[in-house]
Amino acid sequence: MSSSLGTLFRISTFGESHCSGVGVVIDGVPSRMELHAEDIQFQLDRRRPGQSKLSTERDEADRVEILSGVENGLTLGSPISLLVRNKDQRPQDYGSMNQIPRPSHADLTYRQKYGIHASSGGGRSSARETIGRVAAGAIAEKFLAQEYGIEIVAWVSSVGEVEAGTIDFSSVTRAQVDANEVRCPDQKAAQLMAEQILAARNDKDSIGGVLTCVCRNLPAGLGEPAFDRLEAQLAHAMLSIPATKGFEIGSGFAGSAMRGSAHNDPYCFNKGRLATLTNRSGGVQGGISNGEEVYFRVAFKPPATIGQTQKTVDYHGREVLLEAKGRHDPCVVPRAVPIVESMAALVIADLALIQKMRQPY
Amino acid sequence: MSSSLGTLFRISTFGESHCSGVGVVIDGVPSRMELHAEDIQFQLDRRRPGQSKLSTERDEADRVEILSGVENGLTLGSPISLLVRNKDQRPQDYGSMNQIPRPSHADLTYRQKYGIHASSGGGRSSARETIGRVAAGAIAEKFLAQEYGIEIVAWVSSVGEVEAGTIDFSSVTRAQVDANEVRCPDQKAAQLMAEQILAARNDKDSIGGVLTCVCRNLPAGLGEPAFDRLEAQLAHAMLSIPATKGFEIGSGFAGSAMRGSAHNDPYCFNKGRLATLTNRSGGVQGGISNGEEVYFRVAFKPPATIGQTQKTVDYHGREVLLEAKGRHDPCVVPRAVPIVESMAALVIADLALIQKMRQPY
Amino acid sequence: MSSSLGTLFRISTFGESHCSGVGVVIDGVPSRMELHAEDIQFQLDRRRPGQSKLSTERDEADRVEILSGVENGLTLGSPISLLVRNKDQRPQDYGSMNQIPRPSHADLTYRQKYGIHASSGGGRSSARETIGRVAAGAIAEKFLAQEYGIEIVAWVSSVGEVEAGTIDFSSVTRAQVDANEVRCPDQKAAQLMAEQILAARNDKDSIGGVLTCVCRNLPAGLGEPAFDRLEAQLAHAMLSIPATKGFEIGSGFAGSAMRGSAHNDPYCFNKGRLATLTNRSGGVQGGISNGEEVYFRVAFKPPATIGQTQKTVDYHGREVLLEAKGRHDPCVVPRAVPIVESMAALVIADLALIQKMRQPY
Amino acid sequence: MSSSLGTLFRISTFGESHCSGVGVVIDGVPSRMELHAEDIQFQLDRRRPGQSKLSTERDEADRVEILSGVENGLTLGSPISLLVRNKDQRPQDYGSMNQIPRPSHADLTYRQKYGIHASSGGGRSSARETIGRVAAGAIAEKFLAQEYGIEIVAWVSSVGEVEAGTIDFSSVTRAQVDANEVRCPDQKAAQLMAEQILAARNDKDSIGGVLTCVCRNLPAGLGEPAFDRLEAQLAHAMLSIPATKGFEIGSGFAGSAMRGSAHNDPYCFNKGRLATLTNRSGGVQGGISNGEEVYFRVAFKPPATIGQTQKTVDYHGREVLLEAKGRHDPCVVPRAVPIVESMAALVIADLALIQKMRQPY
Repeated sequence: MSSSLGTLFRISTFGESHCSGVGVVIDGVPSRMELHAEDIQFQLDRRRPGQSKLSTERDEADRVEILSGVENGLTLGSPISLLVRNKDQRPQDYGSMNQIPRPSHADLTYRQKYGIHASSGGGRSSARETIGRVAAGAIAEKFLAQEYGIEIVAWVSSVGEVEAGTIDFSSVTRAQVDANEVRCPDQKAAQLMAEQILAARNDKDSIGGVLTCVCRNLPAGLGEPAFDRLEAQLAHAMLSIPATKGFEIGSGFAGSAMRGSAHNDPYCFNKGRLATLTNRSGGVQGGISNGEEVYFRVAFKPPATIGQTQKTVDYHGREVLLEAKGRHDPCVVPRAVPIVESMAALVIADLALIQKMRQPY
Repeated sequence: MSSSLGTLFRISTFGESHCSGVGVVIDGVPSRMELHAEDIQFQLDRRRPGQSKLSTERDEADRVEILSGVENGLTLGSPISLLVRNKDQRPQDYGSMNQIPRPSHADLTYRQKYGIHASSGGGRSSARETIGRVAAGAIAEKFLAQEYGIEIVAWVSSVGEVEAGTIDFSSVTRAQVDANEVRCPDQKAAQLMAEQILAARNDKDSIGGVLTCVCRNLPAGLGEPAFDRLEAQLAHAMLSIPATKGFEIGSGFAGSAMRGSAHNDPYCFNKGRLATLTNRSGGVQGGISNGEEVYFRVAFKPPATIGQTQKTVDYHGREVLLEAKGRHDPCVVPRAVPIVESMAALVIADLALIQKMRQPY
Repeated sequence: MSSSLGTLFRISTFGESHCSGVGVVIDGVPSRMELHAEDIQFQLDRRRPGQSKLSTERDEADRVEILSGVENGLTLGSPISLLVRNKDQRPQDYGSMNQIPRPSHADLTYRQKYGIHASSGGGRSSARETIGRVAAGAIAEKFLAQEYGIEIVAWVSSVGEVEAGTIDFSSVTRAQVDANEVRCPDQKAAQLMAEQILAARNDKDSIGGVLTCVCRNLPAGLGEPAFDRLEAQLAHAMLSIPATKGFEIGSGFAGSAMRGSAHNDPYCFNKGRLATLTNRSGGVQGGISNGEEVYFRVAFKPPATIGQTQKTVDYHGREVLLEAKGRHDPCVVPRAVPIVESMAALVIADLALIQKMRQPY
Repeated sequence: MSSSLGTLFRISTFGESHCSGVGVVIDGVPSRMELHAEDIQFQLDRRRPGQSKLSTERDEADRVEILSGVENGLTLGSPISLLVRNKDQRPQDYGSMNQIPRPSHADLTYRQKYGIHASSGGGRSSARETIGRVAAGAIAEKFLAQEYGIEIVAWVSSVGEVEAGTIDFSSVTRAQVDANEVRCPDQKAAQLMAEQILAARNDKDSIGGVLTCVCRNLPAGLGEPAFDRLEAQLAHAMLSIPATKGFEIGSGFAGSAMRGSAHNDPYCFNKGRLATLTNRSGGVQGGISNGEEVYFRVAFKPPATIGQTQKTVDYHGREVLLEAKGRHDPCVVPRAVPIVESMAALVIADLALIQKMRQPY
């Protein structure tokens, strides 16, 4: 519902761009898990603005405070509440918004839905809402790593029309991803992508991109048929991230052009278990993980806020020229990496806890 | 959870391919709505197997029985339960499945999850599970049409590498879609698609495809930030359909290659309301409908069941040659049209009821 | 919501008194459990009308059909759908109801809520709706017995002002309960209760009563703080049964008159575990089971349908004399025994599955 | 689930007794409602410890901070997050708890459930958890008052064996309730109750009591059959409050001793609507509000923490004498008044929003 996600590992986020803080309550975190602020902070640092010249100048330290659910560095099993104070607020940057709905922003739709909107415009559609997700995701990720050895790595696979070359899903690491500011492990492509982003910035424009994410070491059996298939939950989670327009798992849209004889993943026997020789399924069959790598792609549109003058109309329908102020990313995909990883971790953690109700087979 | 979907307009489906029946319980259908079996049957007829030479030979009349929630042709506001008996069952066709997990099927993952699987293999991953969805979706659709004038039309936009030409989203009708067996309103492309499907069938093979769906006349304001955005719910619903691998809304993956100045949808004043000049957003901004057409695409992989011999291993890891029996579609997309429409209707009906809690703004 | 209950062991009931059938879909039943119609039928038989001269004359065999989720006598892990056809319908008995809302019935409130009501009046408030609960509860009960050795026994502890003497919670059995038609294991009291019920019937009147229920062998640790405490869930489940007006656990209302020094349950060491010397807590502390017996009481009002003439008003506000027709129980508590047991089983099964997500401590 | 309650008006509480803060996230609060910290603070002040000599000496100002969801004194429709910092923590008071589970406390059950417990013992079973409920309830109450004119008043109707005389449900006010420290509007009984509480305190003991609550001006039609009946939701909410052991609505347990002819509430025509001459139903029929006053009673056991020495065993099963330290209420019912009101408001607000999906009938 709205600001909550998950059944057993359940989060409720709160906070707008320009209120006093953003955060999350996480219910269902297993007890007796070691947990410190640093376990959460590292992903917030990867998400925070002002990291490089490729992102917004808004500068927020985004320090997380653990309000509850942890004592002496151990989780209690009770709800963990996390708070990040908003600091570098400049609501004055948003003055014109009271008159003019920004194109492809949520100003108008929030007004249509609620009869009011926050001074920062689209309120909960702000990228700052994702802080709660990333904070909660860092905990989910820690749980999954400890309990199952699960690894989740996302990276930028395209910016504009520049695409990364082949990345080895079984070995790519976050260190490789973070080796450049774009967060593309193909260093050559990363260079071209950075140029695209800076060119867009110079043109007072913005540019879109695609993230790829791989989840390794998932146990078989995760995902609930019929409606809560693993891929359905992942699609839901990814399309709930601001600025996303598409999701595909395994062979995705390209797979729809294939024939079954070429698309099927035959089984083999490998390391003591039934494995698949190929993995066009993306690690899921019938909505349930099969023990292979789960990988998927998420499309992000170019940010709607651009410095260029736009011809549009105000709330009264009068034609106006809109010039954006405010500080915004010319491209969101580098900072979206920890968000995608976190959303994946939240989905998988929830499905893993649900599967525990069943006998291990 | 699992076999339920929705918050206020809520469905719970049941039934496997080879048990005594499949169906659905729908809670939250508005009361005093006229409802007869025919309102539901027409979409089941579009979904049922054996309609044309392009689909499986399994022949099921799939007659729906309304068990509860309706009296004298009027809904009571209580749960509506719908039942379709399974008739043309041939479990003997599935004999070999007890030894060999079919490639890219859910046989193995069901066993990994539950320690058992239905004689028909992937149990709830069977296409027959979608009967409950389509039956419920027909009711959702009727409600949306009466209350808001909403129209939902899906069609086949590609089969294999054959793509339909431009379709006019604002005028395309179901009659045009149903004018050919492929359900592609571009008659020329439909012919080529049909050839592709028959060629696959002749080769004992299968082929994938893409559906496009448009939803017209949605009121502005539907969709719940942050996690239950309209596009997130649609993505969830679509990726919960068997054989789907991808979802994109509005500009989708192609939009990620664009710049913001080209991608943004400027506002204009049209017919008494703020409208957008273009609609790359796909009718949603910040996860909330803006009154424009909502359109999206869904990728379907080629069916996993093929007549060709496949080299794979059995549950003991021994190499075997698998020859499929059973009756299956060489291509699912023509029959998936009412399924996609129904899932869209279910999502929109739920969000429409939720939005009613708010003042009209 | 509404017609669904539970998180992991989840039921959705459907059906009114006079439609073609009533039933339930149960999602989350563990797989590979032996299950046959008889496992369910025995509780339906205890619930069904026409069992004795103490209950309604409506005669329904109430045979259950398993529609899905079971194959070859084993559960598949998929939704189990159960259907009981309505047979002995006499809607003509309800003719006057279209003009006159029956006092203390749901005729008026259903109309206020939905703008319509079923020909049988309160629609889903009918006792027949509980068939789905009892059928689902029988499965929950079987699971709990197999997995934990849990025993659930309810009985009639008062009818009108006649109260049963002391019953031994640790040994009372269903056979003792069913030894008389009232279902009170105190045979002397049962005789007096039967007289009360027959006297009420002879006076064309009805009479209320109280059920007590004990749940033995619950593992410690069931119940989710803060809102889903075991007692909160039990209270919810019990007050959702038609005609209930109260719930108390352990010392209940009487406990509120006590002092802490007399009320506290001190710990002792018994049979290898920490136990309590007394059990005024009713087996729960902080909303979580502690391994002692869980016991509670449920108050049922006298049935609203009585043969006596009642002075009331019709829907137009005109004074009328109402004479009830139809066939109704003069006292519901004997037949409520399996309903209370089933609701308890459903709550406990759900909490037991949820607790499985945690390490065994 | 666990720490969340509600469907459309949904709260998620967090915080233990001795962590850095307690609070709540509330999702679904209608937008454009005036809201200031004082709207919330007044109920927290009625709940806070240290108000009188009848309650614990723990002194907490319990000042609420609105973190999100409100701007310029107006709600935005987004989640409202409220935080109250813990201040007067004395975890050293709880030192012995690591060795000895306190009788009738949640120390042992939390350990059985989570394998760990907070230094304050029963963690989330602490009364401080209720701060989030009261804060959220104050907002729900404001919404209900503005939108429907609903009034909710709870009071102490018994302490130990002292019972209040007849209170006029249709006129009793909070001012009358707060006129004495016990919060019983029968001033004479209040005096006797206060004596009981002080006597218990002097004896290093505690004492239980009962609250009565009336909700006036509810519109007809609230409550969702079958499982989410108004009384079922109220029972759930009330039994989720720490130290509660019972709930009854309308005639309650006493009603179970009556006959139908005496218990039924006949209809009359009054002030333009169908009303009931009596109200033994407690304002609900078939789980749905009928427009009459909803009233119910909640039983609270005597607090488990007493100063007297108790003979019990430690976690190793060794007999010990336990002497409680810490600061605790000898009787919780005076401070429970705003908690019961808040829980009622939360339930009603949720059901009111749900009912909005239906046409007004």
